[in-house]
Amino acid sequence: MNYPKSFQNLVEEFQKLPGVGIKTAERFAFSLLENSKESVEDFSKSILDMKNKIRSCKICGNLSETDICEICSNEKRNKNILCVVENIKTILPLEQSGIFNGVYHVLGGLISPMEGIGPENLNLNQILRRIKEEEISEIILALKPSIEGETTSLYLKEILKDLNVKVTRIAYGIPLGFDIEYIDTMTWQKAFEDRNQLI
Amino acid sequence: MNYPKSFQNLVEEFQKLPGVGIKTAERFAFSLLENSKESVEDFSKSILDMKNKIRSCKICGNLSETDICEICSNEKRNKNILCVVENIKTILPLEQSGIFNGVYHVLGGLISPMEGIGPENLNLNQILRRIKEEEISEIILALKPSIEGETTSLYLKEILKDLNVKVTRIAYGIPLGFDIEYIDTMTWQKAFEDRNQLI
Repeated sequence: MNYPKSFQNLVEEFQKLPGVGIKTAERFAFSLLENSKESVEDFSKSILDMKNKIRSCKICGNLSETDICEICSNEKRNKNILCVVENIKTILPLEQSGIFNGVYHVLGGLISPMEGIGPENLNLNQILRRIKEEEISEIILALKPSIEGETTSLYLKEILKDLNVKVTRIAYGIPLGFDIEYIDTMTWQKAFEDRNQLI
Repeated sequence: MNYPKSFQNLVEEFQKLPGVGIKTAERFAFSLLENSKESVEDFSKSILDMKNKIRSCKICGNLSETDICEICSNEKRNKNILCVVENIKTILPLEQSGIFNGVYHVLGGLISPMEGIGPENLNLNQILRRIKEEEISEIILALKPSIEGETTSLYLKEILKDLNVKVTRIAYGIPLGFDIEYIDTMTWQKAFEDRNQLI
């Protein structure tokens, strides 16, 4: 015996979600079976709804239901400072921290020769266009401290160097509130290289 | 900033699934965002489909897309032996083990005075009707070894005792392939109580 077809089918669909194995998928399907018809319909609809409504902001590449995202269309944001991120997932924690009031630019990936991702696969021309058309005074690179992140930062430094715009990179080092004994060698290296003089 | 409404909405829907926190829900939503429109539509449809098609078997209460489930309508199953289970989730592992060729009866719960679940809330009348109408020679109680399981077994023993049908209970004891040092007191107690004489 297997589950009835429509149930089995849903279990298989759930297994396509990241990190979901068969047991979890079964638990999800059983929970929907127990829920009211309305709430299951709402769930099903919310999936289609998201897929139909969400697009990329035409300026920065952030998630949006409109052509221009909330951040780019917000007059209170400082349009002179551009924070370059790998993907949209970086934006939310940064926004929640409340420390940045500029605007973003989503690359949509990092240069990775290993995975065959070159500069041409990233949203780079748009940055050059923005520097020309918008009054950008500083570009902050907020890419992850991996080989791909470093390669991408170097590439950006190269193509931006003659454009008369300040380019900075977020600091890498020992994170706060973290057991220092678990810090890896690469991070220690960065923390020593970028040490600040106090006296 | 928050996510756009339709994205946020889907994240909240995913959080209603058992054991799904905000981080996991976000990961699920992002993965659907990256999937093709067709595959997301298939997923959404499979949810509605399951909810619309799945019902309870009119005889045993198992999952089914038809009035009578695959097991009850299978002529090769032994209709004389009835295995009583708490819910449909018990059936699949038992079926996969291949050790049981009889039919099932799903109670839909266990008696639990603490949670206000009495015999009247369970699918009990149907058992009595089945004993009268079908030629049942043995009823195997396969309920979990908890207070609620024991209470329900005792209740069933009481209402079945004068019906001229053999009633048995699955053995409780030390599970196979399990580190014996991690076995709890209750299980040890059962294992000693129900010990079998070898010589």
